[in-house]
Amino acid sequence: MAKEKKVQQITDMDADFAQWFTDVVVKAGLIDYSGVKGFYILRPYGYAIWENIQAILDKRFKELGHHNVSMPVLIPESLLQKEKDHVEGFAPECAWVTLGGNEELPERLCVRPTSETLFCDHWSHVLHSWRDLPMKYNQWCSVLRWEKTTRPLLRGREFLWQEGHTIHETAEEAKEETETMLNVYAELCEDYLAMPVIKGRKTDKEKFAGAEATYTIECMMHDKKALQSGTSHYFGDGFARAFNITFSDRENKLRYPHQTSWGVSTRIMGGIIMTHGDNNGLVLPPMIAPTQIVIIPVAMHKPGVLDKAEELRARLEKAGFRVMMDDSDQSPGWKFAEYEMKGIPLRIEIGPRDIESGNFVAVRRDNGEKAVCAIDQLEEKADELLKTIQASMYEKAKANLTENIYPATTMDEAKAVIEKGGFIKMMWCGDEACEIKMKEDVGVSSRCIPFEQEHLGDVCPVCGKPAKEMVIWGIAY
Amino acid sequence: MAKEKKVQQITDMDADFAQWFTDVVVKAGLIDYSGVKGFYILRPYGYAIWENIQAILDKRFKELGHHNVSMPVLIPESLLQKEKDHVEGFAPECAWVTLGGNEELPERLCVRPTSETLFCDHWSHVLHSWRDLPMKYNQWCSVLRWEKTTRPLLRGREFLWQEGHTIHETAEEAKEETETMLNVYAELCEDYLAMPVIKGRKTDKEKFAGAEATYTIECMMHDKKALQSGTSHYFGDGFARAFNITFSDRENKLRYPHQTSWGVSTRIMGGIIMTHGDNNGLVLPPMIAPTQIVIIPVAMHKPGVLDKAEELRARLEKAGFRVMMDDSDQSPGWKFAEYEMKGIPLRIEIGPRDIESGNFVAVRRDNGEKAVCAIDQLEEKADELLKTIQASMYEKAKANLTENIYPATTMDEAKAVIEKGGFIKMMWCGDEACEIKMKEDVGVSSRCIPFEQEHLGDVCPVCGKPAKEMVIWGIAY
Repeated sequence: MAKEKKVQQITDMDADFAQWFTDVVVKAGLIDYSGVKGFYILRPYGYAIWENIQAILDKRFKELGHHNVSMPVLIPESLLQKEKDHVEGFAPECAWVTLGGNEELPERLCVRPTSETLFCDHWSHVLHSWRDLPMKYNQWCSVLRWEKTTRPLLRGREFLWQEGHTIHETAEEAKEETETMLNVYAELCEDYLAMPVIKGRKTDKEKFAGAEATYTIECMMHDKKALQSGTSHYFGDGFARAFNITFSDRENKLRYPHQTSWGVSTRIMGGIIMTHGDNNGLVLPPMIAPTQIVIIPVAMHKPGVLDKAEELRARLEKAGFRVMMDDSDQSPGWKFAEYEMKGIPLRIEIGPRDIESGNFVAVRRDNGEKAVCAIDQLEEKADELLKTIQASMYEKAKANLTENIYPATTMDEAKAVIEKGGFIKMMWCGDEACEIKMKEDVGVSSRCIPFEQEHLGDVCPVCGKPAKEMVIWGIAY
Repeated sequence: MAKEKKVQQITDMDADFAQWFTDVVVKAGLIDYSGVKGFYILRPYGYAIWENIQAILDKRFKELGHHNVSMPVLIPESLLQKEKDHVEGFAPECAWVTLGGNEELPERLCVRPTSETLFCDHWSHVLHSWRDLPMKYNQWCSVLRWEKTTRPLLRGREFLWQEGHTIHETAEEAKEETETMLNVYAELCEDYLAMPVIKGRKTDKEKFAGAEATYTIECMMHDKKALQSGTSHYFGDGFARAFNITFSDRENKLRYPHQTSWGVSTRIMGGIIMTHGDNNGLVLPPMIAPTQIVIIPVAMHKPGVLDKAEELRARLEKAGFRVMMDDSDQSPGWKFAEYEMKGIPLRIEIGPRDIESGNFVAVRRDNGEKAVCAIDQLEEKADELLKTIQASMYEKAKANLTENIYPATTMDEAKAVIEKGGFIKMMWCGDEACEIKMKEDVGVSSRCIPFEQEHLGDVCPVCGKPAKEMVIWGIAY
């Protein structure tokens, strides 16, 4: 058996971005395909990224007073049907359990596509008084949606997510919650994943089934398409009325509470890949990378090399970095390619000549820059380089976003934007018919009505009627 | 609306242990019932206990080189059928998805009852060389088993668990893994949950479907029945052969790897309740309690009381305790009962006279003992008391176990043990027929063949044939 494993090849991202993406998720060891279409295995390296995202969010949720819970995986059809808009949105995508223990069930049960109905049913049991409010819950789980076309991480029939569900005494408090949680998601993206976001509200056409309002963060991928990366929904008291959830208010009168939900899924890992990846594979932001630094001993059979490499590893680990050292018998060249594929932010090379001169070589994954650094300054240099990488990755992604949003005041201008790639910002009359026409004629959907509005004109370029607000349009994943 | 909530009543545990258990899980706020039989909601307080268990195990798994992954929730029927014993064991309890997106599926899909088949399918894709071994994986998820009779935490149609799955180069290494993981479970029980265990091997009749050997930790509950609290399975290469998982060994020959799996579920929370609970409700070991100390201000309208209570809380939090202070307008009496129901290990009462004398009152949940302590010594006293509580709870449970295991050398002796309650230790010939007879005549199942063997006689008291080993028998949950 040959010791040398083959360096893995991936498709050129500019030639075929979709195939490049699939190559990266498979060859970086993030996912494997299962025997069922649209169901994927999140392998150790992929799951470790998700665990880092979970840790950041879970800590933040708890700081903000949320509690984790676990709801059943199955929803009776009658429960799903209680809120009219909600069931219309989700029933077509449900997977149904019809047999249990070889007996036909009296009522078919849906594998949860989302859990609003379950939370509502629970709250209808346990909510009594305004003193019980707010109830701010979250659950980490997987959900099923029977999609026709599927892609790893981006569109699975099963995906992992967190779903936050809260009920509140007043509409104001519930609205504030949706805003707070959207900001938590924006911070996750910008501060940890180095993904700049546009915050805004979804149009009625694009909002969540059963919501009064859906808020979103939208990111621009390398191919200038949009990825909805997190959403937060305000339900008013619609679900509460449908599920008869009431409480005694401060005047001892029965009232309906106001409700929210919000979620981020493993889809965001697809976003990391498509924001930062390159033709050598994955590029991970240091804040989220399972391994931040890989140490590769060069000419490791030479005396002292492995010892020094291990010494560097131990020092970095002690200083709190997530670090590994690869002393396997693959060649340095194979190792360089392998850890580039896996997107490890910083590579440290150490060989006999480096040791002699008291130096090591540090190579940035994001731009390939090499630096020769003093071993004495190992920890400071590693810290400095990782911070620089994190900041540079954000700046690069931010430039991609800001340089590729174009105003349009006519349909022709809008089409021209999509031809070169990017988001369109354009005034809108508020009419769904114009959204449908944008989809048909330009091939874009409304991504959001951004919180940061601009006045680009007085009329809707689609219909010519008076414009209400500015919308961001794009081709979406 | 009355400010004073009613103190909750529960059934006397000696009058009706089963009803007492149900009362505790509901009234301590651990679970709620869903609309589907056997599916439960783990409420914030219940889930917080599970999160503490998760944190202990997850850290240990990772220290031992395991990686978390995520496998699909659905298993194609053909995949489940690949290992004959396994499918025979689980197919009768499967819930089947037969419709996806309103279309009938070409093959029905089982909601996972356990994931051996999925791990095997994955390994058949990704395992190539001995260099890839071992692969030591774990997943945190829920599984479904369509039980006929169900009880919260103890026997749900859905339950949360972790399932570890590993493959190894050699049988020896795999066997060592099963032993290591059984010890991890035993440490969880004894060092954190204050639940003494008996370690042993299951008989062939009681082992996991498809396993060569199943190892178990068995605990004795307050009612002297047995709870299987964690299991670890050695599969040999049976699954590997069934799923055609092979690797190139060090001599470059194709070989089958050896496999294990092991799991602990939310059932263990039922064990905590039934080991330590009393007629005032739950009693939680300090190591696992979401809140270790509750501070209750007495006569809190008096000047300085709330400030002092908050000062104590802040000091304890700073010292690393999980602590809360209840300044709600319920009466102290209501609060005492409420936090006893919730099993918070230590209650601190602080009122005007305590403050004047520089003291606080500490009340142990496990035995009701009160101590007057100096406020100056708050942190040391809290630490000392929590450690004492943890140790006392273990000792009490240990006494319950050791005092209620009785040797039997005749069937009449065995029946007498079960009449007074307890475990039987008895020699066994190794014959399944005798296990069946023990079930029919004495009403017990074999709990395990304990690692710590004793020689109680030369013959099997059931059939009179030569005895092979000693077995622990009991009535099991």
